[in-house]
Amino acid sequence: MAKVIFQLEGAGAVTVDANVGDNLLELARRVNVAIDAPCSGNGSCGKCRVQLLEGEVETIPSRHISQEEFDAGWRLSCNCKVTGDCTVLVPDIASAYQSRMKTADLSSPQEVAIFETAQRELKESGIVFENPFRSGVVSMTAPSQEDTMPDVERFIWAVEGTFGVEKVEIPYTVMVKLASTLRANDFTVSVKGEVKGSTFKCMEICAPEDTALVGCAIDIGTTTVTMVLVNLESGEILAKGSSGNGQIRYGADVINRIIQQSRPGGKEKLQKAIVEETLAPIIRNLCRSAKVTPESVVRISVGANTTMNHLLVGVDSDPVRMDPYIPSFFGWDGLLAGDLRLPVNPLAPVLIAPNIGSYVGGDITAGTLASLIWDKDEMSLFIDLGTNGEIVFGNRDFLMSCACSAGPAFEGGDISCGMRATDGAVEACVLDRETMEPKLTVVGDAGQKCVGICGSGIIDIISELFRCGIINAKGLFIREGNRVKRDQHGMGRYILAFPEETETGREVSINEVDIDNFIRAKGAIFSAIDTLLQSVDMTVECIDRVYVAGGIGSGINMKNAVNIGMLPDVDLEKFQYIGNSSLTGAYAMVLSDGATAKCAEVGANMTYLELSTYPGYMDSFVAACFLPHTDARLFPSSCQEV
Amino acid sequence: MAKVIFQLEGAGAVTVDANVGDNLLELARRVNVAIDAPCSGNGSCGKCRVQLLEGEVETIPSRHISQEEFDAGWRLSCNCKVTGDCTVLVPDIASAYQSRMKTADLSSPQEVAIFETAQRELKESGIVFENPFRSGVVSMTAPSQEDTMPDVERFIWAVEGTFGVEKVEIPYTVMVKLASTLRANDFTVSVKGEVKGSTFKCMEICAPEDTALVGCAIDIGTTTVTMVLVNLESGEILAKGSSGNGQIRYGADVINRIIQQSRPGGKEKLQKAIVEETLAPIIRNLCRSAKVTPESVVRISVGANTTMNHLLVGVDSDPVRMDPYIPSFFGWDGLLAGDLRLPVNPLAPVLIAPNIGSYVGGDITAGTLASLIWDKDEMSLFIDLGTNGEIVFGNRDFLMSCACSAGPAFEGGDISCGMRATDGAVEACVLDRETMEPKLTVVGDAGQKCVGICGSGIIDIISELFRCGIINAKGLFIREGNRVKRDQHGMGRYILAFPEETETGREVSINEVDIDNFIRAKGAIFSAIDTLLQSVDMTVECIDRVYVAGGIGSGINMKNAVNIGMLPDVDLEKFQYIGNSSLTGAYAMVLSDGATAKCAEVGANMTYLELSTYPGYMDSFVAACFLPHTDARLFPSSCQEV
Repeated sequence: MAKVIFQLEGAGAVTVDANVGDNLLELARRVNVAIDAPCSGNGSCGKCRVQLLEGEVETIPSRHISQEEFDAGWRLSCNCKVTGDCTVLVPDIASAYQSRMKTADLSSPQEVAIFETAQRELKESGIVFENPFRSGVVSMTAPSQEDTMPDVERFIWAVEGTFGVEKVEIPYTVMVKLASTLRANDFTVSVKGEVKGSTFKCMEICAPEDTALVGCAIDIGTTTVTMVLVNLESGEILAKGSSGNGQIRYGADVINRIIQQSRPGGKEKLQKAIVEETLAPIIRNLCRSAKVTPESVVRISVGANTTMNHLLVGVDSDPVRMDPYIPSFFGWDGLLAGDLRLPVNPLAPVLIAPNIGSYVGGDITAGTLASLIWDKDEMSLFIDLGTNGEIVFGNRDFLMSCACSAGPAFEGGDISCGMRATDGAVEACVLDRETMEPKLTVVGDAGQKCVGICGSGIIDIISELFRCGIINAKGLFIREGNRVKRDQHGMGRYILAFPEETETGREVSINEVDIDNFIRAKGAIFSAIDTLLQSVDMTVECIDRVYVAGGIGSGINMKNAVNIGMLPDVDLEKFQYIGNSSLTGAYAMVLSDGATAKCAEVGANMTYLELSTYPGYMDSFVAACFLPHTDARLFPSSCQEV
Repeated sequence: MAKVIFQLEGAGAVTVDANVGDNLLELARRVNVAIDAPCSGNGSCGKCRVQLLEGEVETIPSRHISQEEFDAGWRLSCNCKVTGDCTVLVPDIASAYQSRMKTADLSSPQEVAIFETAQRELKESGIVFENPFRSGVVSMTAPSQEDTMPDVERFIWAVEGTFGVEKVEIPYTVMVKLASTLRANDFTVSVKGEVKGSTFKCMEICAPEDTALVGCAIDIGTTTVTMVLVNLESGEILAKGSSGNGQIRYGADVINRIIQQSRPGGKEKLQKAIVEETLAPIIRNLCRSAKVTPESVVRISVGANTTMNHLLVGVDSDPVRMDPYIPSFFGWDGLLAGDLRLPVNPLAPVLIAPNIGSYVGGDITAGTLASLIWDKDEMSLFIDLGTNGEIVFGNRDFLMSCACSAGPAFEGGDISCGMRATDGAVEACVLDRETMEPKLTVVGDAGQKCVGICGSGIIDIISELFRCGIINAKGLFIREGNRVKRDQHGMGRYILAFPEETETGREVSINEVDIDNFIRAKGAIFSAIDTLLQSVDMTVECIDRVYVAGGIGSGINMKNAVNIGMLPDVDLEKFQYIGNSSLTGAYAMVLSDGATAKCAEVGANMTYLELSTYPGYMDSFVAACFLPHTDARLFPSSCQEV
């Protein structure tokens, strides 16, 4: 036995009895110490670093830890075995993922406009914006010796009159506070609930001033969670917020999380990470910000990929990744907020946008709903760039979809200096062809020094390195200079910022491994598009519109994305970045039963193409793993000066 | 500050920081130390005794503590104030109330016969024994690349076929284990649920061997809780058990418990005492005994008085005891077992037999259902003897009801040597008129020494003392002898067992205060009967049948009960002891929707007479507080040799 102390950066310590030979990352997970491990412990991402403060551990060398860092005690926790008592410092990375919560500035007209536009356009496409939730002020006389009706009967009678229904259901949560709420408000109360036919199902009883009916639309991404609170009557956005998905500590991609959930107690841990540690804090924050009670939130809608949906519900998601790759559910309409113990009205139904396959989930059906491509004559390509890349192609007559594993590169994962698009992230970049000096755009206030590179920045850098002839089509460095360095193994890297120029004092660079990772990610996307088009016997010429969605950010430079062979080489005017379409779709669903029905219809009519078994996909992928592509004719406009 | 240690008899100790001046009983309640306090701390019952082991407390003398006992450290905790550090021994009385759980011997044909008879008779009265719960084995083929339907769709399709329904609802508790249960059982599973019209609501999915559908019928008495598990298809009794109501620590009667629940956190405490500390252990015990899973229990029915129903649900019960005495609910059909976290299927509906007034509750409507008096031409009197006494009179044409506060005397409360009808209780007694020597019948195995006196024993003793001329009509001692003693204040008592003859080494006796308490209890019952008859312009001659129900026990001697003027002086053949009719009624409800509807109908048609405001009741009560009555003409057969 050995005593291992995890010293949490800025947050106390956790002491645990370990066995000699225990893996340090596993040990940390067992006691819920959050160590960022996007690759889930296979040694490839280099993010799970901890610093040895006392004692020793057994480890193997890693390319992610320099000699100086090693000497300073830095180790990759996934590569460490316990040999005796030790103390390690755990950097506050995981909590950084979670705590980076943001309640958006709703004064920003752009934020609000996205939802207003979506609602208007969906209405134009024939979607009726109505839902069955109602609130109203209900008045009764107090009981007396002349009027001896008990509270329940008295209340039912009054509610029937107010809402014009024949039957009233009083569930437990309302029943337990009925007597006290009626008396505290002199028998005049606000009642909120759902009308089902001639039945009114009570969901809340409160002071007569509070008649708010609120919906909560949530996009659950593998990496990031975003949500809006919505006035269910007007459609007005009341608050918007986001944070990292707390499941990140169990792996950056869905496969690693499925593996984690299949272990004993795993479903509960993964569910807790998304519900208690991620959704609940944002919801509480947004309710405070919007000044609404949690009980006012009477409906929730969720746009999430198939795995996220399974993990949210707590359903075994092993079938998602196991042959024959059939998830446990596409749609399911039995979920209540109380089942998940979300801090809203426990009776609030949770609408889940339906999955259509293991790797095309509700985020895509919701996003497709929002994109309106199902209502158009023109041929549209809808691309959701996330940890997985999902593609939908078609029009009002047909919809084809497929998915590819892009990995976390678009969100900064698997990249040595990668990060999400938050303060300090290089989000755009232009290089001088002669001097090779960069001009960086960094997220944050003026003067913000750079910390790392986010997805849109990586696209720009690689595109620029290629345009300037600094790297070749395989992503290898072919020019030398002040900013191009090689390590002892000869691996080249381009330095965007020297240590003294950065926030952290560590250089921000991109190396050949990063570029290779990214090329494979963009190759996966392009070959998926290519294969999907082939499957319907079409080519890029047939594309009338390209909708790009996802967390990569509005900063994405479409021209550069075409230049590196990630997006098809069509007229730039055909491109439109539509932001978080999963959230926009969820917004429509929470407000409108018509939108919810349309989303189900879109999902049911969408054909899923399983790429892994599709003949020719692997060839197409390999061909796409060049800059821009082995078949240059596919990218006639690539590599010309902007 | 002072440190108070509660040394629990046979169960460790609880240490608490107290303030000087804290009341010892209050302090114990704050830290959940169970001290039996039927009178809820007003000093009248003398049951809350603790023994000072170390330190001192400030107290006042009590008639319940003799000088010898005082010298030995015995104190009434309700009369003690903390003055400094101290250690007190808490007798294991409260846990005795709770732990005295009994899983009945079902080989006893009498136990089973009560329910069989009730079912047969109810059927003869036209009640159909049907309920909407179904189970069946459902088979599917496993998913494959040729058969790509997800689990949920596959399952719904199969359930529709098996149960012949058009719609299947899958709630959360089934959803979370659907994938794993299907796979663990090769896609052949047992499904249990409720058929509502053309919809099947799933409640459980499990291995195909387990198709049990179980109901749980519960009688929640103020003092005692009793329940049976029932096979919902056959009506067979699977297990029977009982224990004391854990709420006893918050007072022996409903008024004290209502006062306790109205304090901050009180509703939760009282609810926890009945649900977690009383019902849950019995249910677990019975499920084990009957070898059924908790999830198999798909319906619960409850017969309980109005206050117990409110405390169970956790609804403010203050309206029950406050002018205008209108409870918060009569009936309510929205309760699920999961709302209360009962250890059964969380989706199991909890049927509550309806209350008809503040002091005539579901135990009486359920009991009236079971008594079948609603289906008879003859005039029946139904008397439920509990902590409250409830009376119903009528026939198929009308039903009148009323309630009186008898206090805990029938269950041994408010009697110095009173106890419930368990081992060591004197349950019957005959005195020799000459020698005044008693012949006792004691509950328990042969050779069981006596501990105290239970309700039926008290009736016998008082009747015999009166018959033998040892006490007069006011209950005062008028003969002297070896067994009749007087204390220094002149208060007489009759010694049933000298210290050396008892289990505890303390004499078992009945004194004038006890007799007076009991006379008031019996007077309350008789005057209630008398007043109820008067209200419909009838007399005892009109009574064709008398059904006596309640926990007083089958040992009740009807002749003696008449002799002391508790029950009306009618032909002894008209009396029938029907045991726990609340439980019998609940049993019928859990099995039969028809019985449930009939119970609601009986409740709706029952007229409630509020005695406290009825002219003449108080006079009638005062007149009944004699042995047998001030108007001897009402008891022509009283006080004659048996």
